[in-house]
Amino acid sequence: MEVGEEEGSSPWRYTRRGLGFKKHEDFGQWYADVVAKGELIDYYQVSGCYILRPWSYAIWETIKSFLDTEIKAMGVDNAYFPLFVPEKSLSKEKEHVAGFAPEVAWVTKAGSSDLEVPVAIRPTSETVMYPSFAKWIRGHRDLPLKLNQWCNVVRWEFKDPTPFIRSREFLWQEGHTAFATKEEADAEVQEVLELYRKVYEELLAVPVIKGVKSEREKFAGAVSTTTLEAFVVQGSGRGIQAATVHSLGQKFSEIFKIVFEDENGVSKRVWQNSWGLSTRAIGAMVMVHGDDKGLLLPPRVAPIQVIIIPIPITSARTAAAATSSRSSEAPAAAAAAASSTSSRTTAASAAVADPLQECKAVARLLQEGGIRSATDLRENYTPGWKYAHWEMKGVPLRIEIGLHDIEKMQVTVARRDLEIGAEGHKSVVPKHQLLESIRELLNVVQRSMLEKARQQRDAAIAVALNWQDFETAVQSKKMVLAPWCDEVAAEKEVQKKLKGCKTLCMPFELQNSLHSSLASLVLTSLASDTKCFVTGKPAKSWGLWGRSF
Amino acid sequence: MEVGEEEGSSPWRYTRRGLGFKKHEDFGQWYADVVAKGELIDYYQVSGCYILRPWSYAIWETIKSFLDTEIKAMGVDNAYFPLFVPEKSLSKEKEHVAGFAPEVAWVTKAGSSDLEVPVAIRPTSETVMYPSFAKWIRGHRDLPLKLNQWCNVVRWEFKDPTPFIRSREFLWQEGHTAFATKEEADAEVQEVLELYRKVYEELLAVPVIKGVKSEREKFAGAVSTTTLEAFVVQGSGRGIQAATVHSLGQKFSEIFKIVFEDENGVSKRVWQNSWGLSTRAIGAMVMVHGDDKGLLLPPRVAPIQVIIIPIPITSARTAAAATSSRSSEAPAAAAAAASSTSSRTTAASAAVADPLQECKAVARLLQEGGIRSATDLRENYTPGWKYAHWEMKGVPLRIEIGLHDIEKMQVTVARRDLEIGAEGHKSVVPKHQLLESIRELLNVVQRSMLEKARQQRDAAIAVALNWQDFETAVQSKKMVLAPWCDEVAAEKEVQKKLKGCKTLCMPFELQNSLHSSLASLVLTSLASDTKCFVTGKPAKSWGLWGRSF
Repeated sequence: MEVGEEEGSSPWRYTRRGLGFKKHEDFGQWYADVVAKGELIDYYQVSGCYILRPWSYAIWETIKSFLDTEIKAMGVDNAYFPLFVPEKSLSKEKEHVAGFAPEVAWVTKAGSSDLEVPVAIRPTSETVMYPSFAKWIRGHRDLPLKLNQWCNVVRWEFKDPTPFIRSREFLWQEGHTAFATKEEADAEVQEVLELYRKVYEELLAVPVIKGVKSEREKFAGAVSTTTLEAFVVQGSGRGIQAATVHSLGQKFSEIFKIVFEDENGVSKRVWQNSWGLSTRAIGAMVMVHGDDKGLLLPPRVAPIQVIIIPIPITSARTAAAATSSRSSEAPAAAAAAASSTSSRTTAASAAVADPLQECKAVARLLQEGGIRSATDLRENYTPGWKYAHWEMKGVPLRIEIGLHDIEKMQVTVARRDLEIGAEGHKSVVPKHQLLESIRELLNVVQRSMLEKARQQRDAAIAVALNWQDFETAVQSKKMVLAPWCDEVAAEKEVQKKLKGCKTLCMPFELQNSLHSSLASLVLTSLASDTKCFVTGKPAKSWGLWGRSF
Repeated sequence: MEVGEEEGSSPWRYTRRGLGFKKHEDFGQWYADVVAKGELIDYYQVSGCYILRPWSYAIWETIKSFLDTEIKAMGVDNAYFPLFVPEKSLSKEKEHVAGFAPEVAWVTKAGSSDLEVPVAIRPTSETVMYPSFAKWIRGHRDLPLKLNQWCNVVRWEFKDPTPFIRSREFLWQEGHTAFATKEEADAEVQEVLELYRKVYEELLAVPVIKGVKSEREKFAGAVSTTTLEAFVVQGSGRGIQAATVHSLGQKFSEIFKIVFEDENGVSKRVWQNSWGLSTRAIGAMVMVHGDDKGLLLPPRVAPIQVIIIPIPITSARTAAAATSSRSSEAPAAAAAAASSTSSRTTAASAAVADPLQECKAVARLLQEGGIRSATDLRENYTPGWKYAHWEMKGVPLRIEIGLHDIEKMQVTVARRDLEIGAEGHKSVVPKHQLLESIRELLNVVQRSMLEKARQQRDAAIAVALNWQDFETAVQSKKMVLAPWCDEVAAEKEVQKKLKGCKTLCMPFELQNSLHSSLASLVLTSLASDTKCFVTGKPAKSWGLWGRSF
């Protein structure tokens, strides 16, 4: 935080901390700017690597804590396997190594010596873990074996490094499980997918669509990959693969000889899954919710849910002006705001009441009630500067306390997710109802963020039955549901014609994931004579298509 | 766990799972065996890298959870910095790079391309973080800056890789802090040292001595290193550096230009510390407490504190035999145990009571009371096999439930930390007092383990005022307190004459760390005319010397 540069009380200077780009106009630059100015990340000397600052790491800790508890409840044990993979393990499964080899980082030297055999840094840990699975699994009583690890992995991407979304090192959890039967393995796929859905929808307020990846898009070495797909409507019109669960079938158990003796003494191969959710989730959340004022964090993951800011007597007028001064049309708005707020700073306010003390008391009350809240009592910043600062950081609720509020035994609450002037943006809460009201308001914001994102997402889904409709929809930055023949060649052709466009997934249960009118349209229209929009062959499934991060 | 090989009821086969080495006879082999058979680690294909299995990772999670809470309470924020360091950052501080360069792993290739500039894998993160510190710190209001990260680091050791103690990759937390004044930085050193002492003494029941490292043994690049030193008496006679806190002074702030403007507008350099505690702590705990039956885990970190084992009607006799059958003198002892235990399996026992159900009920009761407990109800293993198995894994308390216990509304409890036949090894607890009694017993075991380790440790400290006494004490595997001149050359000479012997630390406050009789002896004898035991020059301090891991 370059605080030193921002001092002084002129509201016009606050804009220097504002974003240099609009989300709608220049999405890429806006994103790079908002993750840095929102203090989630800082850029680093090694290209494609980013520093997770406390503000983003705290979000990751919240995701981690939720997920870790749920994963343990599924009977999965945490463990930790080494960072390094010998080349001979990495390359055992041919499709797997073909998929990962181009982006594997190799350690070839230690100190001043060349290593006899270079070792890879794990891009994922199938080939690290499965030799041990083969050792530990002997009989049916050793199954299921369910392990998870929280760790860093490295994929040396050469194009478009993007904080959280595509970085050379990232943090994730990877679950690796082995079962006696295909049925158990398949059931786990759905269980984990549902768990990941909760992380996205219930914690991050990011709506997702469950589905299965096409042959071309599945994980290298998997029999099939199921996925959650999010979509960034505003400014981008691209999908994001949110988290994936891979059915490995018996492909790895055949190669790594992971076999068990069943109840009848017959030797059998295990059925395996692997699944992961990474810090990418934070990037998806920023992209979906962020706006031209900065980040917008859902209450369940916001490190600070409520920021409490005093309005001192001397600065009340300046503060009010600052509140609305960040847009270029500020002067008029600021004057209006100042006049309306000045009525809150009544003559009677030259009393003993102290906004700073009141802020501390309110913070204590909220903290004792389990609400993550903080005060910003810095004397060298105006309230307006503070408003802008915490808006940039995406804190969902702001409490303002001036003399007028103290007199009336109330606080003024502003919602980050609503525009100034929108209904419900500001409200007044009596102090005796504070805890209940704030708690309820946090729930309202959480629900409302998901609902808004869902509506935007649904409105961005088009249906196309032929190439022309498809192309039009993709060009207008929509996701497109289109029937297709499920063949790799067809997907290749689409990618060739519309650069970057591919299947996001073949959605499960359209009627649950999507808004009902669209779902019924789609479901009724995949009749037996429906043709693939690319090849004209008989359609086998509905593909959800689009450009993607 | 190679369960398949161990089936069958003959007690003689249990020894196949026993340790192949005695702690007193062959410490190194014993350690390598106990960490594997106790299922803490598994060996891996890349030499010097180890797999942390769920049993050890759960211990790490407990340490982490305790430490993380305390670190946050100190006002330190968690963050995450990249794994990779550019060569030019790593080599900025000359002493630092000289200390680490010989064991740095280098990534030189990604996919099939050679990197333009190779990057190092962090051996520690001073040089990763401090360029950001320089960016983030501008004014006195940005101080103190206190960050911590939980991560993996890599030090490519070429000699004696040892699980937990010396591994090429390990997990740790590293705290990095910057202050406006030396006083604040110095105060933090003591605060962190005390926190680490709690982890060792209160969680791991491993007594430690606080002190300062000699010039020769301090962290590369530090002004001074303070340390906690543990000592492994049984079978080893070596010290272990348990955790360290480095006063970096202004050495890094000078080089990385980490400066701030103070209240008067004067530009000053910050004062820094860095501090870390790693998975090495688990190794120290194993070395100090483990015995010839396996691991012995202190209750506060044991993933399972109480294992509950039913004694079925049919196997009661066999079980009793098995209990004592693991030593080679087993037959006689087993017969005695069998006859005493058979009295517990009374004629009335052919009743409706079911030990399995009772075990489940007891486990539920304990779990609801917050005690980490589990049942071992497997039907294909005898109670004796199970006793040996959970003793190997170091579970501090075992509850046995047979028909006799059910009839008498009681359970039988065995302590892992006491020998069979020792007073208090087995006791009977009435069911209506179960929760309180087990809770108290866990506390007793925890305290008793620390106390026993402390007594052994204190008895292994000798005092020497001259070379001959020093040499004799070191050869008999003791730590030696000896007055010395504090000169690097003197320590080099000792290391040359007695291979591996060096200063562990210059202890603070001898009277608090050590038993009082020894402390008073030592303190009175460092008179102004005391000479260095190596050089004969005037002694400057008491050194604690010994061989070390």
